[in-house]
Amino acid sequence: MFLPNSFIDALADYESACYVIFGVPFDNTSSYRAGSRWAPDAMRQVSANFESYNPTFDIDLVDLPIHDAGNLETSASVDETLRDLYEDVKGLLNDGKLPIMLGGEHSLTYSTVKACAEFAGDDFGVLILDAHFDLRSEYRGFKHNHACVSRNILEQITKNLVSIGIRSGPEEEWVFAMENNLKYYTADDVESAGMVEVLKEAIEWLDCSQLYLSLDMDAIDPAYAPGLGTPEPFGLSARDVRTAIRTLAPFSMAFDIVEIAPEYDSGQTAMLGAKLMREFIASHAKSCTKV
Amino acid sequence: MFLPNSFIDALADYESACYVIFGVPFDNTSSYRAGSRWAPDAMRQVSANFESYNPTFDIDLVDLPIHDAGNLETSASVDETLRDLYEDVKGLLNDGKLPIMLGGEHSLTYSTVKACAEFAGDDFGVLILDAHFDLRSEYRGFKHNHACVSRNILEQITKNLVSIGIRSGPEEEWVFAMENNLKYYTADDVESAGMVEVLKEAIEWLDCSQLYLSLDMDAIDPAYAPGLGTPEPFGLSARDVRTAIRTLAPFSMAFDIVEIAPEYDSGQTAMLGAKLMREFIASHAKSCTKV
Amino acid sequence: MFLPNSFIDALADYESACYVIFGVPFDNTSSYRAGSRWAPDAMRQVSANFESYNPTFDIDLVDLPIHDAGNLETSASVDETLRDLYEDVKGLLNDGKLPIMLGGEHSLTYSTVKACAEFAGDDFGVLILDAHFDLRSEYRGFKHNHACVSRNILEQITKNLVSIGIRSGPEEEWVFAMENNLKYYTADDVESAGMVEVLKEAIEWLDCSQLYLSLDMDAIDPAYAPGLGTPEPFGLSARDVRTAIRTLAPFSMAFDIVEIAPEYDSGQTAMLGAKLMREFIASHAKSCTKV
Amino acid sequence: MFLPNSFIDALADYESACYVIFGVPFDNTSSYRAGSRWAPDAMRQVSANFESYNPTFDIDLVDLPIHDAGNLETSASVDETLRDLYEDVKGLLNDGKLPIMLGGEHSLTYSTVKACAEFAGDDFGVLILDAHFDLRSEYRGFKHNHACVSRNILEQITKNLVSIGIRSGPEEEWVFAMENNLKYYTADDVESAGMVEVLKEAIEWLDCSQLYLSLDMDAIDPAYAPGLGTPEPFGLSARDVRTAIRTLAPFSMAFDIVEIAPEYDSGQTAMLGAKLMREFIASHAKSCTKV
Amino acid sequence: MFLPNSFIDALADYESACYVIFGVPFDNTSSYRAGSRWAPDAMRQVSANFESYNPTFDIDLVDLPIHDAGNLETSASVDETLRDLYEDVKGLLNDGKLPIMLGGEHSLTYSTVKACAEFAGDDFGVLILDAHFDLRSEYRGFKHNHACVSRNILEQITKNLVSIGIRSGPEEEWVFAMENNLKYYTADDVESAGMVEVLKEAIEWLDCSQLYLSLDMDAIDPAYAPGLGTPEPFGLSARDVRTAIRTLAPFSMAFDIVEIAPEYDSGQTAMLGAKLMREFIASHAKSCTKV
Amino acid sequence: MFLPNSFIDALADYESACYVIFGVPFDNTSSYRAGSRWAPDAMRQVSANFESYNPTFDIDLVDLPIHDAGNLETSASVDETLRDLYEDVKGLLNDGKLPIMLGGEHSLTYSTVKACAEFAGDDFGVLILDAHFDLRSEYRGFKHNHACVSRNILEQITKNLVSIGIRSGPEEEWVFAMENNLKYYTADDVESAGMVEVLKEAIEWLDCSQLYLSLDMDAIDPAYAPGLGTPEPFGLSARDVRTAIRTLAPFSMAFDIVEIAPEYDSGQTAMLGAKLMREFIASHAKSCTKV
Ligand SMILES: [Mn+2]
Ligand SMILES: [Mn+2]
Ligand SMILES: [Mn+2]
Ligand SMILES: [Mn+2]
Ligand SMILES: [Mn+2]
Ligand SMILES: [Mn+2]
Ligand SMILES: [Mn+2]
Ligand SMILES: [Mn+2]
Ligand SMILES: [Mn+2]
Ligand SMILES: [Mn+2]
Ligand SMILES: [Mn+2]
Ligand SMILES: [Mn+2]
Repeated sequence: MFLPNSFIDALADYESACYVIFGVPFDNTSSYRAGSRWAPDAMRQVSANFESYNPTFDIDLVDLPIHDAGNLETSASVDETLRDLYEDVKGLLNDGKLPIMLGGEHSLTYSTVKACAEFAGDDFGVLILDAHFDLRSEYRGFKHNHACVSRNILEQITKNLVSIGIRSGPEEEWVFAMENNLKYYTADDVESAGMVEVLKEAIEWLDCSQLYLSLDMDAIDPAYAPGLGTPEPFGLSARDVRTAIRTLAPFSMAFDIVEIAPEYDSGQTAMLGAKLMREFIASHAKSCTKV
Repeated sequence: MFLPNSFIDALADYESACYVIFGVPFDNTSSYRAGSRWAPDAMRQVSANFESYNPTFDIDLVDLPIHDAGNLETSASVDETLRDLYEDVKGLLNDGKLPIMLGGEHSLTYSTVKACAEFAGDDFGVLILDAHFDLRSEYRGFKHNHACVSRNILEQITKNLVSIGIRSGPEEEWVFAMENNLKYYTADDVESAGMVEVLKEAIEWLDCSQLYLSLDMDAIDPAYAPGLGTPEPFGLSARDVRTAIRTLAPFSMAFDIVEIAPEYDSGQTAMLGAKLMREFIASHAKSCTKV
Repeated sequence: MFLPNSFIDALADYESACYVIFGVPFDNTSSYRAGSRWAPDAMRQVSANFESYNPTFDIDLVDLPIHDAGNLETSASVDETLRDLYEDVKGLLNDGKLPIMLGGEHSLTYSTVKACAEFAGDDFGVLILDAHFDLRSEYRGFKHNHACVSRNILEQITKNLVSIGIRSGPEEEWVFAMENNLKYYTADDVESAGMVEVLKEAIEWLDCSQLYLSLDMDAIDPAYAPGLGTPEPFGLSARDVRTAIRTLAPFSMAFDIVEIAPEYDSGQTAMLGAKLMREFIASHAKSCTKV
Repeated sequence: MFLPNSFIDALADYESACYVIFGVPFDNTSSYRAGSRWAPDAMRQVSANFESYNPTFDIDLVDLPIHDAGNLETSASVDETLRDLYEDVKGLLNDGKLPIMLGGEHSLTYSTVKACAEFAGDDFGVLILDAHFDLRSEYRGFKHNHACVSRNILEQITKNLVSIGIRSGPEEEWVFAMENNLKYYTADDVESAGMVEVLKEAIEWLDCSQLYLSLDMDAIDPAYAPGLGTPEPFGLSARDVRTAIRTLAPFSMAFDIVEIAPEYDSGQTAMLGAKLMREFIASHAKSCTKV
Repeated sequence: MFLPNSFIDALADYESACYVIFGVPFDNTSSYRAGSRWAPDAMRQVSANFESYNPTFDIDLVDLPIHDAGNLETSASVDETLRDLYEDVKGLLNDGKLPIMLGGEHSLTYSTVKACAEFAGDDFGVLILDAHFDLRSEYRGFKHNHACVSRNILEQITKNLVSIGIRSGPEEEWVFAMENNLKYYTADDVESAGMVEVLKEAIEWLDCSQLYLSLDMDAIDPAYAPGLGTPEPFGLSARDVRTAIRTLAPFSMAFDIVEIAPEYDSGQTAMLGAKLMREFIASHAKSCTKV
Repeated sequence: MFLPNSFIDALADYESACYVIFGVPFDNTSSYRAGSRWAPDAMRQVSANFESYNPTFDIDLVDLPIHDAGNLETSASVDETLRDLYEDVKGLLNDGKLPIMLGGEHSLTYSTVKACAEFAGDDFGVLILDAHFDLRSEYRGFKHNHACVSRNILEQITKNLVSIGIRSGPEEEWVFAMENNLKYYTADDVESAGMVEVLKEAIEWLDCSQLYLSLDMDAIDPAYAPGLGTPEPFGLSARDVRTAIRTLAPFSMAFDIVEIAPEYDSGQTAMLGAKLMREFIASHAKSCTKV
């Protein structure tokens, strides 16, 4: 029997699927290290390491309608790629799917958020786990650089956005965040207040039932996630990010994991990413079951 | 547009395909280095590096009916895996396909050869490019160890077998080869006589129109192919192996590439393997066109 | 002066030794990543990094009777290897040695536990640090797959077994564990209750003076131990595992460290493993001294 | 005494320099593997491995006026980067320098060739060592993709261009080359005719005294140069490329080495590149001395 | 515009600089793993990953007078290298600079401490973060082995020294430390008492306003810093070391980071080191501003 | 059955051995890359990849009296290490052994040559395969730097020395070689004249029956041997070096392989080195048999 080259346990065909995973092998605006183009395939490969059963939620992933759509055909142009991605995500939402995007770089999140925001209407918010503000208005020649994604979301899509894990940015970003009352929590905030409390506040602030959840893996400390485009020491623990994803998944209409650069470790980061994606699905599915 | 996670240019569905590529991620009898289990996926990934057009044969692979069937579901037991593989290859042959197997270890070749021999009947031969005789009758507890594949073929399937590239084996294997008049050429024979002459002799000796062609990548010198299970210095040049594959493809009813261990280089060996597979297909397709 | 190629500070000959370290370079049932076959040699090499003196126990390893017996000659067959290993460990116990096995894969533990159980009689228990239950009755064609070792121990040797660090397994294993009242602690249990409390309970439950202690390195979080066969995020901290080993060593009649795959990091995991082995010896030796 | 962080033996200041080496850490249109952004720094680091004296030309590099200008400040936009690069190279030429560019990707060559062509006037030609035609008119969204550089040169700058080492391209490129009488030699042509003969023909065809020489490192066989963006088997030998560079340097007004991706080996390709750059300088300097 | 090959944000020339960073690529007495010779260049390269603005101290590094002097020209002889280093650091101090040395191995600290002690006079102390005592009087043939640096400082320069992070040493060192009332804190001491309390005690004990701060990166746990010459498990957390550096920088007249071996990871340790150096500068500069 | 941690097929005890292999893990004068300290252990590990039977000489290594003495205990001081090495090699020669040293760096060869020269008397010569002259009189503070070994041999031991493979050195070395009529062949000489002819001339020139044969692995092209301390492009082919070793072994009283740096590849260079050592032993043993 031949097995398809897809994520393990993603056994459903497109039609019957609720969760549609897809990769976007694009990293062409990367500023420091490139290589997140290889992340979707790396995460597929490492996914075979995991058991399908999730004991926390008593959910077996093989029983869930998960589909792996493959990778988006990309251009080297960020604008073209963002345009195609936006169209495809709109298609997924219209077909009633929950999109799970595996980047690729963080700039991609702009298109998926845009498609979700249009689909969701007013009752919508964005929660980003990231070491970086990504609030630049332009970077290294591109408005849609990965370092600008939060700014583009804030200015063009929604102001209902919370960032968790922040610890790096040029002075202008810290000023912009303050002057615009951006809601954010630094990694040190999480260390002192606890992730549970931070999430409680964030959920209250967002006050929406349709969330876009974006995990820039550099939110996590490099001890757990060394394979990154722009690693930043003194980050969140793997367990705290697990807590965030388990807590937020039931409210989420879409999810992404971006900025893994698998050439810079031996699978550690892709494995943690794949695991967190599986926690997202299990938590979301459990919440559906309970209803 | 989402792209499937398959070999680049393998665009056909199963029904319309002539060439069916499949992986067998199995290396459980490996004696020195394991890791050929990762070779099929590694070759898929690196295949994206290559142009679809082959100027030597004026063939564009996108125009050929090539299908990627994915990977065989394997057991950790070599006997179970060989049994399933044999059944699946029989199915491919009965469906009129030319099977292209990407190992995995060399023991797998036993099943594919067996299926082909039964399908082909008398007009059948086997040509193996390998640094090793693989003539042991048993090794480290297994009759179907990768170090025994030629012995098993000779004793159970056909004596019409030629080995090229040989340079390593226990004394018993050299004695067995001599006493049984095994037709073989060492890597040094190829160096002195030339691959063209060696192939001419081999083809005459085999005297068949249905060939099984097996490339144990360790036939090639580690300078070109460092990522191997059992590398052996002083091997064939990449160009000589290309000559062999281009020459023999038109006669071949099946092909395999085995023993690549991608953890031991940065894609070099998987890339050479993927390229040689593409030369095989182009050469074979060209010969069909000419008829 | 020439130095033998053995663990540093393992200066005793076999006869005078109390602690006998040996490697078993076997990983042929590995399901995800192979490579634990290289762990014994990797641990020997990195052991040279450490000081012989242990300040916690005020013990100098050079003063202890430690012998490095080299590596077991293995077959590629798990059954043959387990049989030979069982015989050799029986020999060690009969000679009054404390066996310290460095795997290789976890399936090996079956033979060492079996030999110890027969030697110890009723006053015997097993404590396993592992991310996985290893409770499958069969896996990928083998009853003695590394994923089955706890099941085989429970059914064939002793029910007096505790697992610590558990966080992964198919649903059947969680059900089996519950239905059979298996005593286990998840990594999250340790996080919340504390390792000291968990060990206290485990020791009470086991209620024996002759313990077999087995450390599957994947019990530890991949941040500390990335070089593993089947890494699992959200694991035990290195310090907690040190606490377990220091606490349990005085009761232990044998010890093993398994599942390190040194190809997947730059020595980090082998080094932590070698260090923990040295903590085991120092703690055990100190307890003997005190008596 | 503190040493500057520059190429070894590049001891001259800008004013007194004849040879000005600079890096361009840009790879943002890369199609397969990124990473040539790291090549300039990697080549600086490995340059310390080499002796300053060149016995073939009896030239000591420490006696030559070589300056390392550092790296060009790049944008992530290829158009911006090409514009800045063009201006800077014009500046170098106007200051009487011989520019030596270390990429970065091959698209950069467009700007350096353009600046040189304008400076040189009619007596000008381009010789490119490359596995690829780079004749696409557009690729993955960019007219200035690295896969288009020869096409852009031919159409916008000069038709006096020869390519050596070619072995890969889509069918359109082979057709375009034939229909436009592009002068090129495949790697197999070099293998059969010999590099000396090929160079003789190329020099006659170019018939100019001011040459731009561009070395896309993938011209070389991956056995010698595994660390590449788009490696292509069956390439030129390191010695043949050395012959080309030694022969052509005296006619050359500028030189570049591009497409080294140092993350994919352990310094081998950067070292060969740095060595070939030093052969270029020594050969050029010797020819000046002789006059 | 060409950028110099120096630490990012080190934009000042020597004359106007307050902070002078320099590398010493020397590791010739290394006992276990060599390779810290590559650390200064590795840290330069990874420094480009970081934002210039430090939000904790509201300081932008581009506004500070930081100069990168390049690397010291080293001999393979530790005595020659130490002599040259001493002279150069004296020069820096006499020119009113704050020297920041990036090793290289820990033996180098002897020269920088000596130069600082002579410059500072009585009001001087040394604080070393290290897993090791480095109290040997001689090691592997050298009095100035990296394993002897604290002993040499104590006996030849000053007894006003505190070590934090200690967890490894031969028995003689623990005895020597006790008999000589050496002030030290183990990593477990920090774990139980907290870094803030430990620093408070250390500062009181040192009772000086001119501190030499030395960070042997192996003080930090290998989870955060795997790329080391002599890694030692169970170390300090990255955050605790950040606390130490932030706290002590205002009192410090010089700083070094040593023993990073960048070949043994993918930039993780060099990145943490570069980040900590930037925390040192920002904290020190802030304290100057406040006065 | 436990196997010792030694070279495969080195089954003899010291007393009965003819060939005594030992490692010297010393690289403390290394100028570019360190790491040859790890070569002896790396070569031991990879030796398990090879068959014991050598078909060229019809010799089975398991039948030969080969002993692995382990590694020399080294100091970090080259003078101390050379002194101990000299004493130990004298002991080996006095015991009637043929010493086979696996470095470590090339400076070690001084001691082994010195011991052999004293033992052999007048009928003695030295043949070195090397990319480098190693003719410096002093380097980076050491008279016994690895870059000085040939100079030290010439001036203190014997002038009967031939170098093959030379392609790098400062101008002084080329001048010294010419002025002192040093007999040497460049790698390009071997390329044009052929290794067979070069060896014929070298043997005539040396005119001795007791040869010391030293293989600095950087003689070989980095395509075959990338894992080196100071790699130099455009080197000898692996086959040519095999020819040299097979031809010279019968005349050789000792042999060494030095300068392998195993951290810089995935076993390729250590494997080629181990293979060449086995060719040396087989060729030597065959010549003894024939007498
Ligand atoms: Mn981001
Ligand atoms: Mn980020
Ligand atoms: Mn084979
Ligand atoms: Mn083979
Ligand atoms: Mn286990
Ligand atoms: Mn486990
Ligand atoms: Mn190109
Ligand atoms: Mn190219
Ligand atoms: Mn230290
Ligand atoms: Mn230390
Ligand atoms: Mn040498
Ligand atoms: Mn050399």
